Amino acid sequence: MIDVCLLGTGGVMPLPGRWLSSALIRYNGRMILIDCGEGTQVPLRMAGWGFKAIDAVLFTHYHGDHAAGLPGLLLTIGNSERTEPLTLIGPPGLGEVVEGLTVIAPELPYNLKLIELSGTERDEIRLNGLIIGSIPVDHTITCLCYSLYLKRQGKFDIDMAEKLNIPVQYYRQLQNGCKVEADGRVIKPEMVLGLERKGIKICYCTDTRPTEALVDFVRESDLFICEGMYGSNEDLEKAVQKKHMTFTEAAEIAKKARVKELWLTHYSPSLTEPEKYIDETEAVFPGTRTGTDLLAKTLKYNQE
Amino acid sequence: MIDVCLLGTGGVMPLPGRWLSSALIRYNGRMILIDCGEGTQVPLRMAGWGFKAIDAVLFTHYHGDHAAGLPGLLLTIGNSERTEPLTLIGPPGLGEVVEGLTVIAPELPYNLKLIELSGTERDEIRLNGLIIGSIPVDHTITCLCYSLYLKRQGKFDIDMAEKLNIPVQYYRQLQNGCKVEADGRVIKPEMVLGLERKGIKICYCTDTRPTEALVDFVRESDLFICEGMYGSNEDLEKAVQKKHMTFTEAAEIAKKARVKELWLTHYSPSLTEPEKYIDETEAVFPGTRTGTDLLAKTLKYNQE
Repeated sequence: MIDVCLLGTGGVMPLPGRWLSSALIRYNGRMILIDCGEGTQVPLRMAGWGFKAIDAVLFTHYHGDHAAGLPGLLLTIGNSERTEPLTLIGPPGLGEVVEGLTVIAPELPYNLKLIELSGTERDEIRLNGLIIGSIPVDHTITCLCYSLYLKRQGKFDIDMAEKLNIPVQYYRQLQNGCKVEADGRVIKPEMVLGLERKGIKICYCTDTRPTEALVDFVRESDLFICEGMYGSNEDLEKAVQKKHMTFTEAAEIAKKARVKELWLTHYSPSLTEPEKYIDETEAVFPGTRTGTDLLAKTLKYNQE
Repeated sequence: MIDVCLLGTGGVMPLPGRWLSSALIRYNGRMILIDCGEGTQVPLRMAGWGFKAIDAVLFTHYHGDHAAGLPGLLLTIGNSERTEPLTLIGPPGLGEVVEGLTVIAPELPYNLKLIELSGTERDEIRLNGLIIGSIPVDHTITCLCYSLYLKRQGKFDIDMAEKLNIPVQYYRQLQNGCKVEADGRVIKPEMVLGLERKGIKICYCTDTRPTEALVDFVRESDLFICEGMYGSNEDLEKAVQKKHMTFTEAAEIAKKARVKELWLTHYSPSLTEPEKYIDETEAVFPGTRTGTDLLAKTLKYNQE
């Protein structure tokens, strides 16, 4: 299972009562933060999941509302007594951004490890047992959409395990995908595990216009967190011009990609009541929810 | 008169319910911000004085909790349609800090003008009709205490004006310190103004240990905004070690300097109830107030 918490839902600038868009992902007690705008450390504290277990910060892009909170977060993580390296991941330019922003955080009690993604093609890395994918989207500067996928291995075939005379005490290790040595022979997990089952897929996408590649990339997500800068369809022209989306455009992607659930985020400061537009958005994709600061959910494997 | 608003009162990191220490000063419709930690733009919005009229940001020093909000503030001021240059003032290193932090705010619709103070001696500059003074204090890195002084000219001597046959329509200009030409002769304000009277003095001081120079510098302030990182005298050792002050140390300075009013600020995150220590602090200096976020006051000239 994976825990997800939407720390904030605003775009452009932090507001009284609305933090900037950011998501916290927790799996196996370790955490990944996606985007870190000014003030993100405050809802992070409010979420109550702690700071020390954040192993990576993923940046969609380097506009201020997605990155300005980095130096403060790094200092606060430092105060949490973390000493293990922290990984920062983002499109090209990461080194320059981190070097610039850490001018006011020159001495941290842990190292930073930087991973610059291509920004031009689909990338994939592994972290904390999750597969992190990314593709470039269509914004005013290079911007990435991220997917986080937690694999689920095949079902344990108890009949096969008995047939192979595997001692019961090794079942759990094999279920967890580990090779074991028993009675002088090597037993591989694939000998007793069925075909890989559907895992859990979360996608985080902001800031962009809709693209076909995006539909393909977020296909069948269990949770699709997507920007909806504008609630009203009347703001479509503004959305096109500023390279953002309306609620119904986000819902169209969710529908085409057959995701399970859509959380809208990254609202324009002028959009004070996102829920006003939920009916027309649900008419396009019924599984839509207008995200709110600190909205959290635990995603579990499908029952089989 | 001058309006003062304490935007936040926290040290180290922004907290749910407590913004980082910063003060906004308004005089004649123009504004000066002192320090800009992460999130400062949010209470700035809550104060309701706007963004566009901020002409200068003064930095006491470049620790993250005093400077990390700069890029976000610059972007938000940009959104307020400001086009006049904005002045940034601080101790040595300002250029490097601004260059680093603006890596995520590369295109602003106005220019930045940087003024680096010496950091080693008393400096004085004039801005918006205010005299801004600074002295170095005693912190872990170079840090400045600021004074803002609004001069008050002498009383208008109506008898003298009549004696000199100055037409009544020029009185206001002369009262405002302007030279006028009337009936072919030049009349200087000093001809009809008495001796300069006491103006309004505000001092802002954080982060530091007490120093003798500080007492001298803040002498007879109308308002002395001063750090009180620790409420309890039991934390004195910690204050010495981290180069901060306890409430009573701040009150001692206020008392020695015979200021009118002391507002405490820059509380440690562990200091959840500053008002718990007000009695023992008032015992040292009765005019103490434990600052709270958005505490505001209008300072007027003394009645004469």
